[in-house]
Amino acid sequence: MNRTTEKQRLEFPGLDNKLYFNFGGQGTLPKASLEAIVDDYTYLQHRGPFSHQVNTWLQEKTELLRKDIAAELAVSPDTIALTENVTVGCNIALWGIDWQAGDEILLTDCEHQGIIATVQEIARRLGLTSKFCPILATLNDGNPLEVIKQALSPKTRLLVVSHVLWNTGQVLPLGEIVTLCHQHHVQVLVDAAQSVGMFPLNLTDLSVDYYAFTGHKWWCGPAGVGGLYVRQDLLDSLHPTFIGWRGIDTNERGQPTRWKADATRFEVATSAYPQYEGLRRAIAIHSLWGNSQQRYGKICQLSAYLWEELQQVKGVHCLKSSPPESGLVSFTLDHALSPHQVVQTLEKQGIFLRTLLNPLCIRACIHYFTLGTEIEQLVAAIRQL
Amino acid sequence: MNRTTEKQRLEFPGLDNKLYFNFGGQGTLPKASLEAIVDDYTYLQHRGPFSHQVNTWLQEKTELLRKDIAAELAVSPDTIALTENVTVGCNIALWGIDWQAGDEILLTDCEHQGIIATVQEIARRLGLTSKFCPILATLNDGNPLEVIKQALSPKTRLLVVSHVLWNTGQVLPLGEIVTLCHQHHVQVLVDAAQSVGMFPLNLTDLSVDYYAFTGHKWWCGPAGVGGLYVRQDLLDSLHPTFIGWRGIDTNERGQPTRWKADATRFEVATSAYPQYEGLRRAIAIHSLWGNSQQRYGKICQLSAYLWEELQQVKGVHCLKSSPPESGLVSFTLDHALSPHQVVQTLEKQGIFLRTLLNPLCIRACIHYFTLGTEIEQLVAAIRQL
Repeated sequence: MNRTTEKQRLEFPGLDNKLYFNFGGQGTLPKASLEAIVDDYTYLQHRGPFSHQVNTWLQEKTELLRKDIAAELAVSPDTIALTENVTVGCNIALWGIDWQAGDEILLTDCEHQGIIATVQEIARRLGLTSKFCPILATLNDGNPLEVIKQALSPKTRLLVVSHVLWNTGQVLPLGEIVTLCHQHHVQVLVDAAQSVGMFPLNLTDLSVDYYAFTGHKWWCGPAGVGGLYVRQDLLDSLHPTFIGWRGIDTNERGQPTRWKADATRFEVATSAYPQYEGLRRAIAIHSLWGNSQQRYGKICQLSAYLWEELQQVKGVHCLKSSPPESGLVSFTLDHALSPHQVVQTLEKQGIFLRTLLNPLCIRACIHYFTLGTEIEQLVAAIRQL
Repeated sequence: MNRTTEKQRLEFPGLDNKLYFNFGGQGTLPKASLEAIVDDYTYLQHRGPFSHQVNTWLQEKTELLRKDIAAELAVSPDTIALTENVTVGCNIALWGIDWQAGDEILLTDCEHQGIIATVQEIARRLGLTSKFCPILATLNDGNPLEVIKQALSPKTRLLVVSHVLWNTGQVLPLGEIVTLCHQHHVQVLVDAAQSVGMFPLNLTDLSVDYYAFTGHKWWCGPAGVGGLYVRQDLLDSLHPTFIGWRGIDTNERGQPTRWKADATRFEVATSAYPQYEGLRRAIAIHSLWGNSQQRYGKICQLSAYLWEELQQVKGVHCLKSSPPESGLVSFTLDHALSPHQVVQTLEKQGIFLRTLLNPLCIRACIHYFTLGTEIEQLVAAIRQL
């Protein structure tokens, strides 16, 4: 580790006037990211904004981001499509599968409402069925792998599952889940909103089929940049749905001839490109503090500290009965105020948390640069409610 | 008009070191837009980035942009979905129609390759047919309305048409086209990449069904913000395809219950929100110079001047045989250098144009703040090639 946490925190202006525990909603943008965004806008106006030089430069910058993301996920850059957000990544996978009427999509009961709604609309249009399996109940007891196994049927073609559950912070055994599903000829689409930037990832080893993520949560990049990993041997069988010039090759008369050879086939058209460099800088800044294993170790140490402290507070009930394996610490409170009111009250005191609705709870997110003293102040504020 | 053109131009740093004629590719971003983007990032870090206060503020900002766009298009804000770009807007309409096998999609032969590829993929998946009608040839002779009329068949359900053709700059008679199509029970999806920000629009009067646009061309907003207008009575029949939390209502357990009542049902998830304010500022800045009718008048006056001057240059052939009705002036050149080489040569001299492939030509774009002297310098540079 090259830097102390105190020094590292200076990179994040969002930390300096509050106690911030909402990294799972959105990470605090580094100074260098905003500077890179402004530099890019300035360059674009100086050399374009639309010109041969700028178009070449944007392509190079785009490929640099793709390469950096691929390195973080231990995959080849040509398997990464850049998207506006994690939800678009999930949509690309969900709409791109060659569905047959009667196919079944299996989701866990902890997936995000946007993904559920997408699955429901696909099922409606194409005559599929969808089913939820009870993963939530395995937080402290039971085996998520067994729950999924029980829920698979001969008609199941896809499992939609979060790597880290956004409500409880549970980390699912993704490698085993993928192995199980593949044994049953079921593909796996992962909502990685809470896992990318949280812990070391090797998607090649995991053999996962589709892995959708965002840069603006645990990576602390700007909102509006995310991506989708598509396993290389699936590139040709996953059909592009929303389509534009970025995804196609054209002939000498500008007519579309075929999809791009790599995952850019799933990209559409003009994006907020300066944000790409903003995300690159954010990814780079984290590595100044330590590698992803070291950062994850620190996250676990700190979230365990919060979990232990919360256990000591009368009326506070952590959803998890053992120390967290992620930076998400969810709890309920015996209090006259609703969770929503508690969060609003704390926000007025400069302490930023959020509520979840299913199960109804409050969630605190811990990043590697969170301070022990911040955790203590949070717990003190909860005590004083 | 409150400002001179010279003063207005100071708002656009992209103009000060070059002769810029690529507004149809991307407009020059106003200083105030970049300042607004930076201000928004700063606010987000100060008050969030994820908090109750920020989420409320982002919703308000989003609705302000929607309102400003709606005012420019003379429609109700609830008919506007914000998208990443014009192509996504077209995709929303194209994938959202309740297609039946055998339906036919009619396109003009001047549509963008991304839209053609989308139509081809939809046709492949759903068993539709698609057909091109020869509008290109009507630039100087013939009647686009008649061409479309001839191409309609009992199976045609949708016409995909650009309001202003991106290759030749021809302005199509959209009102008459919509009336014709509606008489034949055919809906009309408009690619408005080159019309929004170019001239006054009243989509309510036009009765158009779907109108997809971007903020980063003639409006000079930041790349990454566009939208789709959906006629109010079609909101319920156009199905959302790419779906996320922005488009759905949820119950007290966070489960999706229904689409949002308005066009936000077509929006997906987290965007580069600071760009929204950047686009708002850009729209506001144009109105400081004059209203949209005045700006369009100036565009036509200046592009006629370029067109006339180009007519005087030996070996230059304007595609249009009469003065342009838009800011797009396309021409070919009798020269040993290819159009691509000409554009690159001129770019090295600080003169920014682009090539089009179908027909193979060079395109110069004139905005209301383009100077007569810039046009003269462009023509002189072409003479000296």
